[in-house]
Amino acid sequence: MSEQKAIVTDAPKGGVKYTSVDLPEPEHYDAKLSPVYIGICGTDRGEVAGALSFAYNPEGQNFLVLGHEALLRVDEVKDNDYIKKGDLVVPLVRRPGKCINCRIGRQDNCSIGDPDKHEAGITGLHGFMRDVLYDDIEYLVKVEDPDLGKIAVLTEPLKNVMKAFEVFDVVSKRSIFFGEDSTLIGKRMVIIGSGSEAFLYSFAGVDRGFDVTMVNRHDETENKLKMMDEFGVSFANYLKDMPEKIDLLVDTSGDPATVFKFIKKVNNNGIVILFGTNGKAPGYPVDGEDIDYIVERNITIAGSVDAAKIHYVQALQSLSNWNRRHPDAMKNMITYEAKPSETNIFFQKPHGEIKTVIKWQ
Amino acid sequence: MSEQKAIVTDAPKGGVKYTSVDLPEPEHYDAKLSPVYIGICGTDRGEVAGALSFAYNPEGQNFLVLGHEALLRVDEVKDNDYIKKGDLVVPLVRRPGKCINCRIGRQDNCSIGDPDKHEAGITGLHGFMRDVLYDDIEYLVKVEDPDLGKIAVLTEPLKNVMKAFEVFDVVSKRSIFFGEDSTLIGKRMVIIGSGSEAFLYSFAGVDRGFDVTMVNRHDETENKLKMMDEFGVSFANYLKDMPEKIDLLVDTSGDPATVFKFIKKVNNNGIVILFGTNGKAPGYPVDGEDIDYIVERNITIAGSVDAAKIHYVQALQSLSNWNRRHPDAMKNMITYEAKPSETNIFFQKPHGEIKTVIKWQ
Amino acid sequence: MSEQKAIVTDAPKGGVKYTSVDLPEPEHYDAKLSPVYIGICGTDRGEVAGALSFAYNPEGQNFLVLGHEALLRVDEVKDNDYIKKGDLVVPLVRRPGKCINCRIGRQDNCSIGDPDKHEAGITGLHGFMRDVLYDDIEYLVKVEDPDLGKIAVLTEPLKNVMKAFEVFDVVSKRSIFFGEDSTLIGKRMVIIGSGSEAFLYSFAGVDRGFDVTMVNRHDETENKLKMMDEFGVSFANYLKDMPEKIDLLVDTSGDPATVFKFIKKVNNNGIVILFGTNGKAPGYPVDGEDIDYIVERNITIAGSVDAAKIHYVQALQSLSNWNRRHPDAMKNMITYEAKPSETNIFFQKPHGEIKTVIKWQ
Amino acid sequence: MSEQKAIVTDAPKGGVKYTSVDLPEPEHYDAKLSPVYIGICGTDRGEVAGALSFAYNPEGQNFLVLGHEALLRVDEVKDNDYIKKGDLVVPLVRRPGKCINCRIGRQDNCSIGDPDKHEAGITGLHGFMRDVLYDDIEYLVKVEDPDLGKIAVLTEPLKNVMKAFEVFDVVSKRSIFFGEDSTLIGKRMVIIGSGSEAFLYSFAGVDRGFDVTMVNRHDETENKLKMMDEFGVSFANYLKDMPEKIDLLVDTSGDPATVFKFIKKVNNNGIVILFGTNGKAPGYPVDGEDIDYIVERNITIAGSVDAAKIHYVQALQSLSNWNRRHPDAMKNMITYEAKPSETNIFFQKPHGEIKTVIKWQ
Ligand SMILES: [Zn+2]
Ligand SMILES: [Zn+2]
Ligand SMILES: [Zn+2]
Ligand SMILES: [Zn+2]
Ligand SMILES: [Zn+2]
Ligand SMILES: [Zn+2]
Ligand SMILES: [Zn+2]
Ligand SMILES: [Zn+2]
Repeated sequence: MSEQKAIVTDAPKGGVKYTSVDLPEPEHYDAKLSPVYIGICGTDRGEVAGALSFAYNPEGQNFLVLGHEALLRVDEVKDNDYIKKGDLVVPLVRRPGKCINCRIGRQDNCSIGDPDKHEAGITGLHGFMRDVLYDDIEYLVKVEDPDLGKIAVLTEPLKNVMKAFEVFDVVSKRSIFFGEDSTLIGKRMVIIGSGSEAFLYSFAGVDRGFDVTMVNRHDETENKLKMMDEFGVSFANYLKDMPEKIDLLVDTSGDPATVFKFIKKVNNNGIVILFGTNGKAPGYPVDGEDIDYIVERNITIAGSVDAAKIHYVQALQSLSNWNRRHPDAMKNMITYEAKPSETNIFFQKPHGEIKTVIKWQ
Repeated sequence: MSEQKAIVTDAPKGGVKYTSVDLPEPEHYDAKLSPVYIGICGTDRGEVAGALSFAYNPEGQNFLVLGHEALLRVDEVKDNDYIKKGDLVVPLVRRPGKCINCRIGRQDNCSIGDPDKHEAGITGLHGFMRDVLYDDIEYLVKVEDPDLGKIAVLTEPLKNVMKAFEVFDVVSKRSIFFGEDSTLIGKRMVIIGSGSEAFLYSFAGVDRGFDVTMVNRHDETENKLKMMDEFGVSFANYLKDMPEKIDLLVDTSGDPATVFKFIKKVNNNGIVILFGTNGKAPGYPVDGEDIDYIVERNITIAGSVDAAKIHYVQALQSLSNWNRRHPDAMKNMITYEAKPSETNIFFQKPHGEIKTVIKWQ
Repeated sequence: MSEQKAIVTDAPKGGVKYTSVDLPEPEHYDAKLSPVYIGICGTDRGEVAGALSFAYNPEGQNFLVLGHEALLRVDEVKDNDYIKKGDLVVPLVRRPGKCINCRIGRQDNCSIGDPDKHEAGITGLHGFMRDVLYDDIEYLVKVEDPDLGKIAVLTEPLKNVMKAFEVFDVVSKRSIFFGEDSTLIGKRMVIIGSGSEAFLYSFAGVDRGFDVTMVNRHDETENKLKMMDEFGVSFANYLKDMPEKIDLLVDTSGDPATVFKFIKKVNNNGIVILFGTNGKAPGYPVDGEDIDYIVERNITIAGSVDAAKIHYVQALQSLSNWNRRHPDAMKNMITYEAKPSETNIFFQKPHGEIKTVIKWQ
Repeated sequence: MSEQKAIVTDAPKGGVKYTSVDLPEPEHYDAKLSPVYIGICGTDRGEVAGALSFAYNPEGQNFLVLGHEALLRVDEVKDNDYIKKGDLVVPLVRRPGKCINCRIGRQDNCSIGDPDKHEAGITGLHGFMRDVLYDDIEYLVKVEDPDLGKIAVLTEPLKNVMKAFEVFDVVSKRSIFFGEDSTLIGKRMVIIGSGSEAFLYSFAGVDRGFDVTMVNRHDETENKLKMMDEFGVSFANYLKDMPEKIDLLVDTSGDPATVFKFIKKVNNNGIVILFGTNGKAPGYPVDGEDIDYIVERNITIAGSVDAAKIHYVQALQSLSNWNRRHPDAMKNMITYEAKPSETNIFFQKPHGEIKTVIKWQ
C-alpha cells in the first residue's frame, strides 16, 4: 500500500495539509505500524510557519510528512524477542549517521550534525503523521506499562529531559554539588518557562530530590498551578518575585535576556542547562561582569539537544511512575485532542495548552 | 621580628608603596620563609589601579600586602617529612573555609565564596611581597626539580591551567570527545589572548595532544612567535584569519564580544573554558541564534577559577618537563626582573611583557 | 524517661533478651521517636549467635540494643522545615567520623573504618529496638509516600542496593558497557542468592533495564517464583542450569567458591559487585587462570558496603514506585511480623522467610 | 618483495626460528616500514615454549611471525600530515574488530574478545620481527622526541601502564581517594614484581605523586636498586618486610597467593589493578574473610589488559620526560641487545634482565 493520508508541509517554506500522499513501502523493514497519538510542539508549528530554516524535505521530494512525538501501534512485525503485534511503541526521532557518537547509538551527540543524521518530521526524513509506517525494531521503544495509555505520547518530549539530566550528572561532577548530607534536599532547581517541556523538567527535578520552581513573566492559570502543586513544584512570576540562590537552572525559553538575568542568580558550582531555542529572540548585552560572574563561581552552562534510546526508556518509566502517583495531573498534561483534519492547531494554540495531541485512530 | 619591608596597597582604593610595615609574628606557624621571586599579573595591577572592587584589606588593617604568584625559600621549619630548610616552595593563594568543597582541600571550588575563603594578596589576607613570611606546611608546595630555578615562579599562574584541564576532563565526558583512533590528534584547541596565561594554556594543550592555536586581534612579536613555534603552537591574527572548527576554546580575555564570536566556531560537543575576566568589558548582544547554536551542538561552557594544591603539584611537574625540553622558550617567559622598589611596573607593562617578576633576594 | 523496654545483646559475645534497660535521655537531640517496624537480618542473627567479632557494646556499657533496619514515628520534634510530629522516618545506621569521606556525608565510604564511624545496633552505638529514641534531624529520612506503610521498613536493606548501583555507574564508565542502541536491553544481570537483599537487587536491576536472573543452588518456592515473575525476574537453580554471558554479577552469598565459579561466566568489561559477607565461608582455590580471566576481559570487581543518606532517599522512592506497580509482590516481601517478645526469631528463620520484621507498636 | 627474514613460531605449539619466509605485499597499505628495535617479553617466551594456548597462526598459515614490542622506521609512506619517510614509529599491537568498543578505537576494551580482534605476533596476525612491514597510518604512533632513541622501544609495554592508570582514574572516583589537601602526597602505591613492567608502573606512579614501593620475595640487585633510587622508588623484600596501608596495589605477577596476601593490606577505598597473568600459577584458598575484607572496605579490583592508541602517545611522552630527567636509569632499562639470530634469548633470560631487545638494523 502506498496511497495514504498524511499531514504534510513543504520544508522549509511551510504550510500544512491533511491530504493523500504516495509513500511507497520500503524494501526492507521489520515492522508495519500505525499512529495512535501524535503530539505537536513549537517545532511543528515553526515548520508550518516557515520559520525553521534548517528543516527540509526528503531528498527528491516536494513535501515532508510532519510529526515526531509519536505513539504507534505495531500492526505487523517480524519474529523477534522485543515487540509483538498489538504493542504500543514510541519511535526514535533522530537516526544515526557514521560519526563516532552515532555509531554507539548516541546520534543525539552527533559529532558532525546534518548531513550525518536525520530527524523524522524535521530534516530530510518523513515524520509519523501518516496512516502507515514502516520501521526497524532497533528504532522502536516498547511501552511496557499497559495502564499508561495515551500518556505515553509524552515520551518523546520527556526523553530530552532525561538526556539533560544525564548531562547534569556528568558536568556536576566537577565539584561536590550535593549537600553536606549527600542529598539534594534544599538544592534549588529553577525552570524558565511553563510549557509542556518545563512541566516535564519540573517533575523530573522533583524525582531527583530538588526543590523545584517554575518561573514565567506572568501569573499562571489555576489549572497549571494545581498540577504543579500536586507534584510539589512551586511557581514564581519573576517580574514580581525573582528566585535567588539557584543550583540548577534550566531554560526552556531560548531568550538570552531571560537566561542571563537568571544566570546571575546561580550559586557557586551551579549548573545551567540551555534547552529552549528561539532563533528570533533579540540580542541581550552580555558584559564583562556577566563573564566574570560565571568564571569566579565555577559555573557550567551546557547546551543539550535530543536524546538517545536509553532516555526514551527512562522517560517511559518515569511516565509510568508519575501516572500511578498523580493520575489527574498527568491526564491534565494533554489539554486538547485534535482530529487529523484540524490543521488549524498548527497555527493557533488551543486555549490553556500544555500539550496538544492528534488522535489518529 | 615584625618591622619589615613590603609592597602594599590599600584595597580596594588602590595605590602602591614599597615601605616598612609592622606585621607581627603569628602565634602558630610551621615555617618561616622569605620570597625569592614573585610574579605580577593583571590582578595586582587592577588592585593598584583601584579597579578591583572585590579586593579588601585584612580585617582591622588599613593596608594589604600585595603578591600572590610567589616562589619562597624556607628559612626555618618544624620537624616534618616534606620540606626542609633551604627548600624552594610555592605557597597556596586561596585558603579554605568551612563549606563542603573547602573541607576536602578544594577551596578553588568553594560553594560559598567569600567570606568562606581568603586569597593572599587579594581578599583580606596579606600577600607574599614582604621580607618575612610564616605559614603552615599544608599550604606549601615543594619545588622538587633543582634545575627549575626561577621558572618555578610560574607555578601559580600555571596551576589555573591544570585545574581548567581537570574541568575539561570532567565535562568532556558527556559525549565522545576523542577522535576515532582514541587520541586528540587533529583536535583543535584555540586560546583567545597571547599573555602569560595564554602561553601556559597553549603549552599544556600541546602536552595533551591538541593542535593548538593562540589568537589575538593583532600580529604578534617575533619573540612570541618564536616561543610558540618551539612548542609547536601556531598563531592567528583573527581579524585577518579566523580559526574554524574548534574543539576546545579557552578564553583569557574576559571580553564577551570576542568570546561569543569564537563560540560560533566551536564544533559539536565542543568545550569552552571561560578563564579571563575583565569586569569593564562592554556588552555584546547575545541573541537567540547564539543560544540556539550552543543548544543544537551540545556545547558546554565552563567558568574556571583558581586551583587546588594538586594542580600546583602538576604545574611544577609540567614546568620541569617543559624546562628540560625547551629551556630557551621557558627562560623567555620571564621578560623582566624588577627590584622591589620598582613599583612603576604596577602601572606600566614593560615592553614585550609575558611575565614580569620581582626578584626579592 | 530512661527506663524502657529494649531488645539487647552483649556484643560480641551474643545472646538476646527483651528486657527493661536504663537509657538516659541525651543532652542534645532534635527529635524524640518510637519504633513502628524493625526488620531483622543476618547481621542481627550473627550478633545474637556471637559470630560477629567486630560487633561491640557502646563504651562503658555491658549491653547493646539491637536493630538497624528501622521505621520510626516522630513523637516530638523541634521546629524545622523537613519533618513534623507524626511523620514516619527511617534513621541512618552509620554515623560520620572525621575522615575526608565522612565529612561530606559519605560515611559509607569512610576512609578509616572504625573507630571513625559507628553503626547503630552493631558497633558501639545502641540500635533502634527500644521504646524511645532520640536523634538529630540530619540522620532521619522522611517517608513521603503515605501509601507506603510498613513496606518502608525495607528502606534500610534497599539503600545498600542503591549505593551498589552508584558504584556500578562509576566503575562501568571504564569502557562502553551499554549496548549498541545505548540501552541495557539484553544485558544480563545475575544475582547470587534469593534472600531479601537478592530480591531488592533484582527489582532495582529490572528498573535499570537489565535482563535479571536470580540464582541459588536449589529450586525456589512457589511464593518466591511468583514474586520474581511479577517483576519480570527469572530464576535458575545453578546446579542444573548455569547462567552464561553475565554483564553484571551481584553476590549476596559471601561464598568464594560460588563467586569465583560465576566470575568465569562474566563477559568482557563485566562488573562484579561483592555485597554479601560470610566470614566463615571455606576457602576456594583461586588459581592463575582465574586471575588471567579477570585481566584479559577487563573485569572489575567492587566491594560495596553500606550507603549514604541519598541512597535512603532513592530507596524510599523506589519502594513507592514498586508498591504502586506490584503491591502484592511488595506485601509478600514481609513474610512474618513478630512481637518484640518473640526473640526466638533471632535463632530460627520463620519458614519461607524473605523479610521478618518486629511490629513494635 | 615477498621473501624475507623473520623470527617465527608455530602457534600454539611453539618453537622459534630465524628464517626466510614468504610474506606477500598486501593489496592496500599506507606505509612500508622496517624494524629498528623489538623488545621481547614473557608473552613471546610463552609462545615459543608452547605455553600460551590462546596464541594461533594467521588463517591458512603454518607459522606466526613473533614480535609485538616494536620500534619501526618508515621507509615509504603515502602523502599525509602525520608521518614522513625516516620517522620512527611504534605500531599498535591489537587491531579493531566490529564491537561497540572496537569501533571507537578502543579495541583494548573489546566487548567480544577474539575473533573480534587480532594481536600482532600473538593471535592470528603476524608480528613485527621481519625485514619488511606494511601498515596503515592510523595504526602507527610517531616518536616525536628525536633524543629518545632506542628507549622508544619501551612504548609498547608502557602503554599498558597508561591504560591501567586510566582505569584507576575512573574507578577511584567512587569515593574521595585523594588526601585532605587534594593531592596524593603520602598515598602508597605498591607494585608486586620487579620486572620491566613493574619498573614502568613505578615510574608512572611517581609521576602521579604516589609514594611508590616495588616488592618481590627476594632481595634485589644493586643495579635495580640504584634505578629505583634515582626515581624515588623504594623496594621491599616482602618475605622480610611486608608493606601495610596500601592505597593502590598493582600486580604484575599473576600469582593468586601473592595477590590475595597483599589485598589484605589495602586501605579502605583502595584500588587493586590486576595486570600480570600466569595461567599456571597454583590455586590459593580465598575464603569468606577475604571476601569480607573487600566488601567492608569498598575495595575495587580491576583487571586491565592492553591499551589504546592514546596510551601509546602518553607512553612516548612519559618516556621522553623520564629520559631527560633520568637518562642513566632509562638507559639501564634495556639490559641486553641481541641480534636477530640469537634466538636463545627466547629460552633463557640474559642475566639481570630488565628488558631484552633485538636490534634489527
Ligand atoms: Zn516536539
Ligand atoms: Zn553523527
Ligand atoms: Zn596572578
Ligand atoms: Zn568554601
Ligand atoms: Zn540488616
Ligand atoms: Zn570516616
Ligand atoms: Zn610484551
Ligand atoms: Zn571488539
